[in-house]
Amino acid sequence: MTASAARPHGVYETVLYASDVDATAAFYRDVLGLSLFEHYPGFAAVFRLDDGAIFLLFEPGRSSAPGRSLPNHGSFGAGHVAFAVGAGAFEDLLKSLQDHEVEIEVDETWDWGGHSVYFRDPAGNSVELVEGEAFPQVSRRPPV
Amino acid sequence: MTASAARPHGVYETVLYASDVDATAAFYRDVLGLSLFEHYPGFAAVFRLDDGAIFLLFEPGRSSAPGRSLPNHGSFGAGHVAFAVGAGAFEDLLKSLQDHEVEIEVDETWDWGGHSVYFRDPAGNSVELVEGEAFPQVSRRPPV
Repeated sequence: MTASAARPHGVYETVLYASDVDATAAFYRDVLGLSLFEHYPGFAAVFRLDDGAIFLLFEPGRSSAPGRSLPNHGSFGAGHVAFAVGAGAFEDLLKSLQDHEVEIEVDETWDWGGHSVYFRDPAGNSVELVEGEAFPQVSRRPPV
Repeated sequence: MTASAARPHGVYETVLYASDVDATAAFYRDVLGLSLFEHYPGFAAVFRLDDGAIFLLFEPGRSSAPGRSLPNHGSFGAGHVAFAVGAGAFEDLLKSLQDHEVEIEVDETWDWGGHSVYFRDPAGNSVELVEGEAFPQVSRRPPV
């Protein structure tokens, strides 16, 4: 085992794809309340979460086209993202989903105290809201 | 504008896909130093970052198959993720990429003080390491 502090400490950008990136961006803004701070109609939308993380939507045909100044990428098919939500906001977001007639596909309570709901964005991506922990915590203590 | 505190405060799970999920998981563990804490050979790998975020790899054929207890998802084509890296770790990770003969596709310095390098994982996903900020900060102060 090579123990090293040389590793990323977090995820800075998370990406999903949508053929109708504008309608999908409106969903994340209006239903989930995310802050849309850059919007390139038909191409991309950029959200910043309160903890500083960036969430991006791209139209995969354009983002995968060759000749961009940044590396091309773009995938087709349903992606998945889970957002972290506080206990109070979780209940309010469930109400927002209901108000916008978004169907809950799965409602799951985890062994580690967390609670998740799953639904689809307009592009068919699987979106999850997690209150608490959906995975066990990992102990990073060295063996003694 | 509907200002509301009812929104996710962060991204809990970020997902990429890889047809050879085991080789791709080994890349994130051995080259980038990520902590692999759950591994389902041929199907999925789960990493937890130091800030608590979860990074997942799935084999998209299996994750998109119907009949799972959790909602199916799975996409094909290059995805993109950016990891947040501290200044010291950034230099060490550049050396690790070089030691593992991983080619830097783009090296970019941003107007907002950040520095990114882009490369590919074994599945062809575009991976970015960001030191500092790749996007402008958003002021959340109300207008005065």
